[in-house]
Amino acid sequence: MKKLINGIDDVVREQLQGMAAAHPELSVHIDPHYIVRGDAPVAGKVAVISGGGSGHEPMHGGFVGVGMLDGACPGEVFTSPTPDQMYECGMAANSGAGVLFLVKNYTGDVMNFEMAAEMLAAEGVPVQSILIDDDVAVKDSLYTAGRRGVGTTVIIEKIVGAAAEAGYNLDQCADLARKVNSYGRSMGMALTSCIVPAAGKPTFDLGDDEIEIGIGIHGEPGQKRMPMTSADAITEMMALEIIEDDAYTRTVREWDTENGIWVELELTDEPLAAGDSVIAFVNSMGGTPVSELYAVYRKLAAVCEDKGITIARNLIGPYITSLEMQGFSITLVKVDDEILKFWDAPVNTPGLRWGA
Amino acid sequence: MKKLINGIDDVVREQLQGMAAAHPELSVHIDPHYIVRGDAPVAGKVAVISGGGSGHEPMHGGFVGVGMLDGACPGEVFTSPTPDQMYECGMAANSGAGVLFLVKNYTGDVMNFEMAAEMLAAEGVPVQSILIDDDVAVKDSLYTAGRRGVGTTVIIEKIVGAAAEAGYNLDQCADLARKVNSYGRSMGMALTSCIVPAAGKPTFDLGDDEIEIGIGIHGEPGQKRMPMTSADAITEMMALEIIEDDAYTRTVREWDTENGIWVELELTDEPLAAGDSVIAFVNSMGGTPVSELYAVYRKLAAVCEDKGITIARNLIGPYITSLEMQGFSITLVKVDDEILKFWDAPVNTPGLRWGA
Repeated sequence: MKKLINGIDDVVREQLQGMAAAHPELSVHIDPHYIVRGDAPVAGKVAVISGGGSGHEPMHGGFVGVGMLDGACPGEVFTSPTPDQMYECGMAANSGAGVLFLVKNYTGDVMNFEMAAEMLAAEGVPVQSILIDDDVAVKDSLYTAGRRGVGTTVIIEKIVGAAAEAGYNLDQCADLARKVNSYGRSMGMALTSCIVPAAGKPTFDLGDDEIEIGIGIHGEPGQKRMPMTSADAITEMMALEIIEDDAYTRTVREWDTENGIWVELELTDEPLAAGDSVIAFVNSMGGTPVSELYAVYRKLAAVCEDKGITIARNLIGPYITSLEMQGFSITLVKVDDEILKFWDAPVNTPGLRWGA
Repeated sequence: MKKLINGIDDVVREQLQGMAAAHPELSVHIDPHYIVRGDAPVAGKVAVISGGGSGHEPMHGGFVGVGMLDGACPGEVFTSPTPDQMYECGMAANSGAGVLFLVKNYTGDVMNFEMAAEMLAAEGVPVQSILIDDDVAVKDSLYTAGRRGVGTTVIIEKIVGAAAEAGYNLDQCADLARKVNSYGRSMGMALTSCIVPAAGKPTFDLGDDEIEIGIGIHGEPGQKRMPMTSADAITEMMALEIIEDDAYTRTVREWDTENGIWVELELTDEPLAAGDSVIAFVNSMGGTPVSELYAVYRKLAAVCEDKGITIARNLIGPYITSLEMQGFSITLVKVDDEILKFWDAPVNTPGLRWGA
């Protein structure tokens, strides 16, 4: 294992110390690990918070800043953060306008964010929690029941972060997050495995001429293995699965702030259709350079055009990664005027910046 | 070889087509390959142009846009672009205020940019050409005599691009480029090799527990091979070589616009010294994720502090890459008020964006 680390137990802490040194506009807490905006809590503003295992940088810590997240809770590599991290982060970021948790659908994350929501609610903090589950590749996976939360997370954090910055209240932020999740679909693939520092060896083995389609962001198994083929063939296969994905119905638990209980909601995502406009996001899994992402984007744009889907905006680069894994993911998020307005709004974070 | 490409002969063209699809604000020409701002030529503005082999994305094409480059000429992978590309790009970007070529010191690039400068001058276009040679690792290398042009290129393109946007004339832009180059020093290292598509196999072999210090951006040999060690040890070794680098004197050729001849200049870079402020740039070679770059930055900040050097600004991420090579480079560029002002100015390109 060759990685730019020191001791295996120090990986996440030292990366956070590097972030603290590089970004004095952020407040990086080491014990427990969490990152908040330096000006947190921001008076009158809903605190938008996410978190999850480390190894997906810049997500989530790199998306803390004006116009995006108020806070992020990094767990150890590919390991859920703990409820106390989430609770401390929520307390540090809450201005009184409440806390919105954006939770990727992995069993550990969901469980811990639920505990943290209850802990915050017990302190009188208004809290809501929205589940992100956009991966069309598999129904259930190694780490979760239902679809995994992947690339749409980045898009939701940007859009809901901008809405909170613009003065949306907690209910409005939660509604918007739920809507963007229902509009987002993703799929990933891997050319190589990643190596988790504590394991010291590849998470899985792929042959020299073999790829994994539908891979998760932790190297968990995907949909299928197949022989390596062209960028065009891979891109078309994945884009079509996303575009032709049927309506998806599942039951999610959300926190009922008024009554202080968890309620179950049945949510259904409508499929994409000709005439829709989307944000198209081509993401590197970490080890794939941006040049190859442009080859993917070329074909993705052609497939979308062929299907009557207009790409209104795009994002191309490493934003939700899986350590040094080579591969990419495609995310398409249907947009409307509200979503586009918040996508275009200024953002100033280490990982995503424009207009500021 | 597993890469997201189609035919080997189509790699660069298809990546450019992807850029064209993703960035309608750019004008991407396919035959010959060059990229200019969509609004080129910009009246009254010096056209800042760079170029070099492909495989280093986002450099240079991803740095075309408001506040940075007016044009970029991508060669085939790790292959110099041709004089006709540079000439066509210069003609498309020249508004009458002239063309400034920013040329990384590789024999092929230097030769072809010299020919292109003469071709433009023959058409009456005012042209100047500044050599970038900032790599302290080796005196001469496989592809050039003298120091190679590496990370400082990104910094020069940003700063001189902002100056041109602010109305600097051709002489002023050239003076500023020469100054920033004299203030910049870099060094890189590799954990793994890259694979050039046309070769189909790694450019060099590194053992499972071996690294290469002082590597170039084409996988050309560096200073030494050594056993893998900690991020801290590697970072300190490289940072000290940069900080303690002596005054460097060499003879460069620049075009004398008035007399239409090449003149030789002897230029000397002053060493860094305690009390200096710098832009610190930690760059991924392509396959190293940003999380590991933060571990490097943590130690780099400590070494700089220890040496009395203040980091005024930083840039951390994959900006001048070597395909999917794992590894990183450090660049330190001494700054003054003029340089900082132009570093902070708005920039809007696919690869670097803020304030716009």
